[in-house]
Amino acid sequence: MKAEIINIGDEILIGQVVNTNASWMAEKLYESGIEVIHITAIADTKDATFNALNQAINRADIVLMTGGLGPTKDDITKKCLCEYFNTKLVFYEEAYENIKRLFKTRGFKISEVNRQQAELPEKATPLPNPNGTAYGMWFEQNNKVIVSMPGVPFEMKALLQDEIIPRIIEKFGSKKLLKRTILTQGVGESHLAEIIENWENELPGNFKLAYLPQPGIVRLRLSAEGKGIEKEFDDQLEKLHQLIPDLIWGYEDDLLEEIIGVLLKEKKQSISTAESCTGGYISHLITSIPGSSEYFKGSVVAYSNEIKKKVLNVHPQLLAEFGAVSKEVVIEMAQGVKKLFQTDYAIATSGVAGPDGGSKEKPVGTVWIALALPDGSVRVKNYLFGKNRERNIRITALTALNQLRKLILRS
Amino acid sequence: MKAEIINIGDEILIGQVVNTNASWMAEKLYESGIEVIHITAIADTKDATFNALNQAINRADIVLMTGGLGPTKDDITKKCLCEYFNTKLVFYEEAYENIKRLFKTRGFKISEVNRQQAELPEKATPLPNPNGTAYGMWFEQNNKVIVSMPGVPFEMKALLQDEIIPRIIEKFGSKKLLKRTILTQGVGESHLAEIIENWENELPGNFKLAYLPQPGIVRLRLSAEGKGIEKEFDDQLEKLHQLIPDLIWGYEDDLLEEIIGVLLKEKKQSISTAESCTGGYISHLITSIPGSSEYFKGSVVAYSNEIKKKVLNVHPQLLAEFGAVSKEVVIEMAQGVKKLFQTDYAIATSGVAGPDGGSKEKPVGTVWIALALPDGSVRVKNYLFGKNRERNIRITALTALNQLRKLILRS
Repeated sequence: MKAEIINIGDEILIGQVVNTNASWMAEKLYESGIEVIHITAIADTKDATFNALNQAINRADIVLMTGGLGPTKDDITKKCLCEYFNTKLVFYEEAYENIKRLFKTRGFKISEVNRQQAELPEKATPLPNPNGTAYGMWFEQNNKVIVSMPGVPFEMKALLQDEIIPRIIEKFGSKKLLKRTILTQGVGESHLAEIIENWENELPGNFKLAYLPQPGIVRLRLSAEGKGIEKEFDDQLEKLHQLIPDLIWGYEDDLLEEIIGVLLKEKKQSISTAESCTGGYISHLITSIPGSSEYFKGSVVAYSNEIKKKVLNVHPQLLAEFGAVSKEVVIEMAQGVKKLFQTDYAIATSGVAGPDGGSKEKPVGTVWIALALPDGSVRVKNYLFGKNRERNIRITALTALNQLRKLILRS
Repeated sequence: MKAEIINIGDEILIGQVVNTNASWMAEKLYESGIEVIHITAIADTKDATFNALNQAINRADIVLMTGGLGPTKDDITKKCLCEYFNTKLVFYEEAYENIKRLFKTRGFKISEVNRQQAELPEKATPLPNPNGTAYGMWFEQNNKVIVSMPGVPFEMKALLQDEIIPRIIEKFGSKKLLKRTILTQGVGESHLAEIIENWENELPGNFKLAYLPQPGIVRLRLSAEGKGIEKEFDDQLEKLHQLIPDLIWGYEDDLLEEIIGVLLKEKKQSISTAESCTGGYISHLITSIPGSSEYFKGSVVAYSNEIKKKVLNVHPQLLAEFGAVSKEVVIEMAQGVKKLFQTDYAIATSGVAGPDGGSKEKPVGTVWIALALPDGSVRVKNYLFGKNRERNIRITALTALNQLRKLILRS
């Protein structure tokens, strides 16, 4: 059972909107065991629609189209479909009632173009759209299904979930698909691939592994098809976990800053940060989580040495002797902010984010991270990241948060 | 000159990632006068790649592919292209040097799979990728161009802008298209549309205006086609500027945090921030600009009232009487951080970012922004944004930076 998505709209082709409809649809279909093999964005012209339909029907069993169903002149999908399926428009009283109801709620006056939205192709099964004036249309031809729905996200979403996916499953049945996304931090994609190479090579043939790298994070997606494979799937996940216990920090859509929040709330502990090279980014990540004020007391972004001395109580002699980017200074930053904010944990960062400011001894990408712990000790580590400022800031923050996560878990 | 985009990757087809590469590429190509007629997302299999390539070459002059160039087993694009163009892999010393340089910077060990990334199809022109190990590949066949590049966004972006678009324009020439992206801050899309309605309606027929809203910012893209229209284009821009002088803060890819940096450097002035509801995000934005240490001294993220008192010297009675989200407190936060960090300007924020924590008097979205100026005065203003935490944080930061920009310009 293969599906193809066609999104109609010039706004996608000029980059004016990001095609979030496609990813949302793909995810829901995938979760329902319906494989999406192709996603296409095309212009709202008859030629493009016909061509895309012809090719999609060749490849897939199910073709799901969005867009071009509005009341204005440039919405031509309905007309195209009538011609494509050699059928004519008929007036649906039920669809017109829906339009009248919606216009009443919104206090608008119905016009002739709106009334025309209640006309639907005779060969299509009309799919009610409670959130908008354009009904969905379900066509069947040679045992293939072609569905057209509006492109307005919240209208499309209700139609897909409530009308279309249930009908697809009723018609085609559903396939069993297991999947898990494993989130890792600490080594790059190729290094990770080497570490887990043997495990990957020994995966059964019905298993698939994909690497999805982002700056500072590599996501692994494991999926498997078949019946009665739940135990094998869990076993493989467990084997992977035993290979890289320190690198795995979460699953699916987890965020490091969220996981840390959960851990700190559980333990009723608090945290503060003293940031130099990360410039407030760690603080921003932590506070992006709702309810973070419960465990996050605040941050000192100490971009100047003066502030490191005055607010964080870093000893002037250490700054003079070792420089701001040093083990000695980052330790005192962590201790200073922990004391100032009276927290259980503290993170401190100091480094050369780049692109300039590097030296032979401390090249761009040099970063020190210190973590002050509840027992008064400080863990400190040195890193050498890349040349890109944005990446360095992000990787430093994620590395610090992952170190913190491990230390909280071990405490 | 028609272009087609092919994004390769199972993660798109299962909805795990939103295809932001496609929209970014489409926008850049459109801005360069290159028409995108088709965007396709496909699986990383040979069949899918061959089919997509065949169809794309039929429709378009230029085919731009992303993805499948990593070092792991599921990255098969390079092999597919060799077969498709009937060519073989050859080792490029220059590409290998690039890989070695990147690994050295990151402190990783080179493995055999990384070395293989320096092997490229003989028939392709290699396109240097300074940000990653996978080079781009430029093929030409029957006067059509096929380019393959990595899917990692910041690698793809640099390649497209610095290597690919200039080569396309060199080969195909470029259509005369005048365009300008005008960046505004301060009012929403529909309000802005009302303010400039008459101007928009009177634009000549060869002019096009598009609204590109983002949280806190509305970008306007004005474009015009034709010969000898430069003066008319400038005149229209000037008219727009006279309509909304306070709302326009920049053009094209300008960033507010960058513009502020330029202004502060020019005037040799400095800034600090005291952030409550923005949680370090303003500090993060400012420090994301290289060289910001010249004018940014630091920030105090004061998430708890204790810190507001202890570090920022906010009077305990004000906190007790008016609460943290109040005019009185945000003024003292701005004054406190300005004094502590000895800066010319200071920004302070306090608000209810949400989704919880609102009350009848101070609903979610309530925000106070204070700006302390070199003359000792403080400008303070109250806002009511929306219900979404992420948006509220972003809009607050942008609003504060734009207020600061206007105040610096008037000083």
